[in-house]
Formats: sequence, structure tokens, C-alpha cells
Amino acid sequence: MDDKDAELTTDDTVDAAPAEIAAEQQLGLSDEFIREIVLLLEEDAASGIREKCTALSAPDAAELLTKVGPLRHRLVDILEDDLAPESFSYLSYEILNDLFSNMSGPHIAAIVGELESDDAIHLIDELDETRRSEIMRHLSRKVRAVVEEGLNFPEESAGRLMQREFVAIPQFWTVGKTSDYLRAASESLPDKFYDIFIVDPMHKYIGSVTLSDVLCTQRNLKMESIVDENRVKVPVTMDQEQVAQIFRRKDLLSAPVVDDVGRLIGVITVDDIVDVIDAEAEEDLLSMGGVTDSDIYSSTFATARSRSTWLLVNLVTAFIAVSVISLFEASIEKIVALAVLMPIVASMGGNAGTQTLTVAVRALATKELSAANAWRVIGKETLVGILNGVFFALLLGAVVWWWFSSPLLGAVIATALVINLLVAGFFGAFVPITLTRLNIDPAPAAGIFLTMMTDVIGFFAFLGLATVFLL
Amino acid sequence: MDDKDAELTTDDTVDAAPAEIAAEQQLGLSDEFIREIVLLLEEDAASGIREKCTALSAPDAAELLTKVGPLRHRLVDILEDDLAPESFSYLSYEILNDLFSNMSGPHIAAIVGELESDDAIHLIDELDETRRSEIMRHLSRKVRAVVEEGLNFPEESAGRLMQREFVAIPQFWTVGKTSDYLRAASESLPDKFYDIFIVDPMHKYIGSVTLSDVLCTQRNLKMESIVDENRVKVPVTMDQEQVAQIFRRKDLLSAPVVDDVGRLIGVITVDDIVDVIDAEAEEDLLSMGGVTDSDIYSSTFATARSRSTWLLVNLVTAFIAVSVISLFEASIEKIVALAVLMPIVASMGGNAGTQTLTVAVRALATKELSAANAWRVIGKETLVGILNGVFFALLLGAVVWWWFSSPLLGAVIATALVINLLVAGFFGAFVPITLTRLNIDPAPAAGIFLTMMTDVIGFFAFLGLATVFLL
Repeated sequence: MDDKDAELTTDDTVDAAPAEIAAEQQLGLSDEFIREIVLLLEEDAASGIREKCTALSAPDAAELLTKVGPLRHRLVDILEDDLAPESFSYLSYEILNDLFSNMSGPHIAAIVGELESDDAIHLIDELDETRRSEIMRHLSRKVRAVVEEGLNFPEESAGRLMQREFVAIPQFWTVGKTSDYLRAASESLPDKFYDIFIVDPMHKYIGSVTLSDVLCTQRNLKMESIVDENRVKVPVTMDQEQVAQIFRRKDLLSAPVVDDVGRLIGVITVDDIVDVIDAEAEEDLLSMGGVTDSDIYSSTFATARSRSTWLLVNLVTAFIAVSVISLFEASIEKIVALAVLMPIVASMGGNAGTQTLTVAVRALATKELSAANAWRVIGKETLVGILNGVFFALLLGAVVWWWFSSPLLGAVIATALVINLLVAGFFGAFVPITLTRLNIDPAPAAGIFLTMMTDVIGFFAFLGLATVFLL
Repeated sequence: MDDKDAELTTDDTVDAAPAEIAAEQQLGLSDEFIREIVLLLEEDAASGIREKCTALSAPDAAELLTKVGPLRHRLVDILEDDLAPESFSYLSYEILNDLFSNMSGPHIAAIVGELESDDAIHLIDELDETRRSEIMRHLSRKVRAVVEEGLNFPEESAGRLMQREFVAIPQFWTVGKTSDYLRAASESLPDKFYDIFIVDPMHKYIGSVTLSDVLCTQRNLKMESIVDENRVKVPVTMDQEQVAQIFRRKDLLSAPVVDDVGRLIGVITVDDIVDVIDAEAEEDLLSMGGVTDSDIYSSTFATARSRSTWLLVNLVTAFIAVSVISLFEASIEKIVALAVLMPIVASMGGNAGTQTLTVAVRALATKELSAANAWRVIGKETLVGILNGVFFALLLGAVVWWWFSSPLLGAVIATALVINLLVAGFFGAFVPITLTRLNIDPAPAAGIFLTMMTDVIGFFAFLGLATVFLL
């Protein structure tokens, strides 16, 4: 893999078409490669595996450990020190705890000690309680102090995201002195940094200078003269979603993190923010589907258990909906076509409501929808419901008229559909807006509540109207 | 707004708690501010509006233009040149075309001429066909050439994302010569840049150097000595989702874009990638909910029309599902409780299937799920379906037994539920995996197909078993 990569990028004449290079080299491992390693693992061909895997990047190694399944223990044993410690910080909760269950405390502590501060904290945080305290005992005093401090910050806060390694200089330095300092001190600086922070003698944050500004400014000018004083500073307790919002708005590469008296204590970099954005997007998507976490690598039993909560809620709301049907048993007994048709009204309402809900939940998350335009949106969604209600009512009414040769049954189902789509539009917007105003995350709760509503209204309107007009 | 911001960040003693500053200042506009502007617009208080809005950042100005509703035309007239041209590139399709419908061709062309190349292309691309060609005529020859070239790249490709402004140097330069060049040429360089690219005499891309490496390396060393030759280069036609994947894997700040012979023609920066990730996440979320685009700002009629496609598909699948019920009309006539209970089995199957589908769609998007572990995941999901099927079957069977005093009816609904949850688990994983293998985006299509399946199986299993065992 890696030889080929180096060859392709140092070669002046590109042989393969660029798109192919990309598909093959840059986007994780191919399924063929993983199958090959699985075969080698099954044959216990240690040297073959080491040869193929030594040069894997950390994310690639993590992907391999994940996808080879239970063979991953053998893979770790074979690769040993060829496996970069960073590989472990890319693993999901389940895989990490599975792997660590077979490793000694000192071994794990040695891995943690090699990581950057934010990765070390994240990794320790992923461990099971009992394992965590065991590993902590084996950490060096310095690393343990950093990890303990980090774990004290609230989950998903800036304190958990930040690195403690950054470049800070006093405000009176010139560009030239700063450049000389960077060259002289390069050994003790972080591997990569994206901004230089300026602090006062009390280590309070004053402002940031981008590296391109340092490079493009005359050496005799003061750093103060090119400082960006409007640069946002992030309080250490700020929620990570808000931090991401700041990076989006300001197109930042890194942001200073300050404690409650304004002292600079860390830096958050944009690559961590990309991870946050991915994680938040995943959370939103999964919770709309009634799942709390990506459980793709959880055990069967754990998955079934975590999903059952949601199914239980759905069972209760389903009983509420069908209790409406039971009110009309007598009508159904007389006209059995009602039983056949009633799911259509409920289903159309559920789908129309979900459409509105999805748009509203997303717009609330991106702040496109807020108190300033809430009523305008609710009004529009209600109108959309009425418009589509009337359109599909005509269509459905005609089909039902033709199918059951009953114009009155067609009229009843058409009216019920208009009512249900109106309700779906109104509540599809109203429910998430109201939940958000009450500081409740609308993504998981709103859907089930809305579907219950469109079921209840759908059944009640259709069966009720039928009872009044057809019996 | 802005005075306050500047005051807070230059002040050494921070008065307000940091979290409050954040909530107030950094995350877009407050609803109070928007309401205030709306009131001023209604009163036509031009000077008051100018005073409050002159210092808005481009994203904030775009948010304001969006949220003041139809008053936005008056706002643009009042602000005139106080409105940064970049503000327009943050607007959604609908708002942009609404605003431009009232503006002259030369005025719009002047705005486009002020933007960076990628923003200019994006903005022109958002215009309606007829308007686009009118504006193109008013652009300067140079800008028009750039825009035309950009629009020739496929939508959502690297060519659309890249800026043409970047810093490239020959490979034999030293760090010192590079630094001197940057200071001397700073006027002609882009405002911000994150990497320096090294090219050969034919302008073919050789490698990248991070700015922190330039700053930390001795002046007499050659740039070649600190070049990262393994840096990924992006073919101009690569899909933006793949580009984002590269940034994620390699934690990049910027990536070089090359043409088909390897010449450096542009740069993609991480802030553009953040926008891509947001857009892709939005697309995934919305399409799971049966919506193609965020239509929160579309007109009522356009929204109703675009959503109706999905509702029509749902109507057809609903008819397929209820046609199953109609097979059992005779059974329902005899035992009306069947009509009451049948939605429960269908609804539980639909929800369990959606859970599996959501996890699978997300894992497919992140490549956590691929051919290498597809069958393992399908098997596990089927097992999860059986486990939860048995658990809820016992619960539901008991409730139905008690409610209708019929142990046999309880047993029938319990069996139907196990069957339906098994089917939901299997197809919830199988359908999106198969669609992905056929290169079809599973997010929109899989949901409706799966729900139809769980409806059909749910009704058929329950009513069929009831017909066999209860009649």
C-alpha cells in the first residue's frame, strides 16, 4: 500500500487517472485488503501481516482492527510496536474495550502516555469504570494529572476537546523576535500549530496572529500590530456544538481556550471540530431514526436492549392509536372497507408530518429557524399541508369511489385526509419548535409524538366521519 | 453589536461570565436584534438601521437578510455599500433569487466581481438560467473567464470548491528565500493561506510545506528538506464527499488541486470542507425524512410541490399494503378485533426496521459498513430483530390476551410480531447494503420500501395466522 502511495506522489509523470488513485489510496482500506489480512490472520502468517501493515496510518490501522472482527486480538499481538498508539484513539467504544480486555494495565498505560493530551483524555474516558481506575494507577504522575483535570470538565465541553500544547508569546515582541524564537525553540513546540497566541504577563489571552500574517509581515513590526483582537476566545466549559458554530461563522483554524479569569489554558484545532461536526450530525440522524448511538459494533444483546426502549415507547403510542379504532368497532363490523382503508389516511399523515418535522428539526439545529420566524414557518407548513391535503384528497377520493363504487366513501376519506395533512403540517412544525423553546432536543421525542398524533387524528377523522355519514 | 464585541475582547478584565459572552456575541444574531430591525424597517428608519447594521459580519448579514422576510429588499436598499459582497454568498438559493429579482444586472455583476473565485462561481451557479446569462454579460472579461471555467467542472466536484489564489514556489528555494519572498510579495498573496505548495518548472505539484514548518526551520535549509511528499493531491474532478474524507483522514488545513497532467491549479481549504460536511449531513438527514432540500425558505407552493412526489410514492405503497388487508375482509367481518390490532404489528415492524436502516445508512456513509463486514451486520440485525421480537411478543401477547380474553388471539399477534421484527431486522440491513452496492443512494429510497415491506408482512402474518387459527 504505502510504497505505491509514495511512488505515486513523488513521481512527476502520473500514470493512473487521478480518480483511480484517489479511490485506491486515500479513502481508507479496500475490502480486498481487509479480506487478505483476515486470511493471513487465520493462517497465523505473522511476517506477511507485519509486512503489509507496518506502514498503515493510524486511522487505517483503526479501520483494520475494527473490520477484522474477533481476529483483532491476534492482529494486535502480531503488530505489537508497529501499531502506532494513535490508532487506538480512532476506535469506537466497543472495539476499544474489547481489545483492552485482553491487554495488561501497564501496556495500556504506556499507550495512553504516548498520546496527545486530548486523545489521552478521550481514550481514558471511553474505558469502563473499573478498568479506568486500574489504568490511571499505571500512568506517570504528569499524564495522570492532565487526564484527571481533563475528565473534570463536563462531557462535550471545550475542556475535553482542547490540547494543552500551544504557542504563546508576550505582546511586546516583534515579528522578527517571534520568528527567531520559533526557529530556536522548535524542539519544544507542538508538531503542528496554526495560530500564535499573544498573552499578557499574567498569561491572560490578548489576541491571535495567523501564521500567514507572521510570514508576510516585516520583521521590525510588533506582533501587536497584526493581532486579531476580535478573535473569539472559547470558555473552557462551552458546549462543543457552540464551539463548532464559532469555527463555522469565523472560518477559524484554531481557537484559544480560556479559564474563568481569561487565562489561556489550551487550544482547539479545526480537525477536532470536524470530528465534532461529524459526531453531532450522526447523533441527529440516528436520533431521528430512534437510535441513541451507532451500535453497529455493539454486541447483539446490547443492541437489542438499547433499541428496545424506543420500541416500548412506540408500543404504548400504538395502543393509544388503536384504542381510537376500538371506539368504532361497530362501524367497522358494518362496513369492513373502513378497516381496509384506514391505514392509508394514517400513513399519509405520518409521512407528511415527518417531512415537516425533518425540515424543522434541521433548521432549528442550524438556527435558520428561531423565535423570529417561528410563526411564519408554522403558518407556511400548515398551508403546505392543506395544499397537498386537497391534491391527494381528490386523487384518493376518486380511487376509493372507483374501487368501492361509493362516492360517499370517497368523500369521507378525502375529507379525513385533508384534516390529517393539515394537522401533520401544523404539528410537524409546532412540536419541534415548542420542544426547542423548552430546551428539549426535538430530534428523538418529536417523531414518535407526531406519528401518534397523525395516527389518532387519521383514524378518528376517517372512522368518525364514516360513522356519521355512512351509517 | 460590534463595539461591544471589540470592547469585550480587548479588555483585560473580563466582567461578564465567559459563557454569557459566547451566547450573546458569537453565535449569530439574537431574535431581539432581528425584531428590532424589522420594527425599524417597518418605520423606514434608514439611519437607525445603518447604524445597527454597518458592522455586521457577512454570515450575520446573510442571517439578517434571511430572517427579516420580504422586508429584505428594503434592507438591501438602505444598507447599499455597507453590505459586504460576501454576505450574498451565504444566502440560500431562494433568498438570493428573491433579492436579485429586484436588482439590476450591472449591480449584481459588481457584487460577483468583488468575491473570491469559488464564491463567485457558487453565486452564479445559484441563479436562475435566464438571470445567469444576463449577469455573465456584465462581468469583466477576467471574472467571466474564471466563472465559465468553474461552471464547466461537475457539480459538487473539487473544481467547484477550489480557490485559484494560492502560494506556490520552486523546489530549490531555501526557507530563508521563501520567507523573504512572502514578506516582499505580501500584497499580491491571498489574504490567508495555510500551506505553501512546491511546484516544478512545468508547474506540476511536488509537495506541501505547512506554515509552522516554515517558521520552525533554519533559513539556510532547502524547502525540499521539509516537504511533505505524501500529501494527498486532489484531482479537479473528485467528488466533494471524497475530498472531505481525505481532509478527515489526514487532518489537513488545505489540499492542492491538480489537473489531469498533475499541474497545480487551485487549493481547497478546510473551511470549505466544513461547509461540505454540513451540506452532506443535511442532505442525509433530510432525505431520510423524505425531503430533497431544506425548503424552509421556499414558497408555500414550491414546497408543497416538491414534497408531493414523496407523498405520491407513499400513497402507492400504502395501497399495496392495504390490498393485503382486503384479502382478509371476511376474517375481519367475523372478528373485528383484528382490525383494531393490526396496526400495532405493522407499526412495531416499521419502527424496528427504521432503527436498523438508520444505523446501516449512517455506517455505509462513514464506510464503517462495507462488503468486508456486510453479512456479519445483516446476521446481527436479524438476531436483534428476533430478540426484540420475542420480548415484545410476550408483552403484546399478554396484553391482548387480557384485553380480548382470548389466549389464542394473543398467541397469533405474538407470532406475527416475531415474524415482522425478524423481517424488519434482516431487510433493514439488507436493503441499504444492496442499494449501496448497486450505487444507489440508500437514504431516500430504502425507508419507503422497507415500511411497505413491514406493513405488508405485518398485515399478512397477523391476518393470515388469525384466519388459519381463529376461524
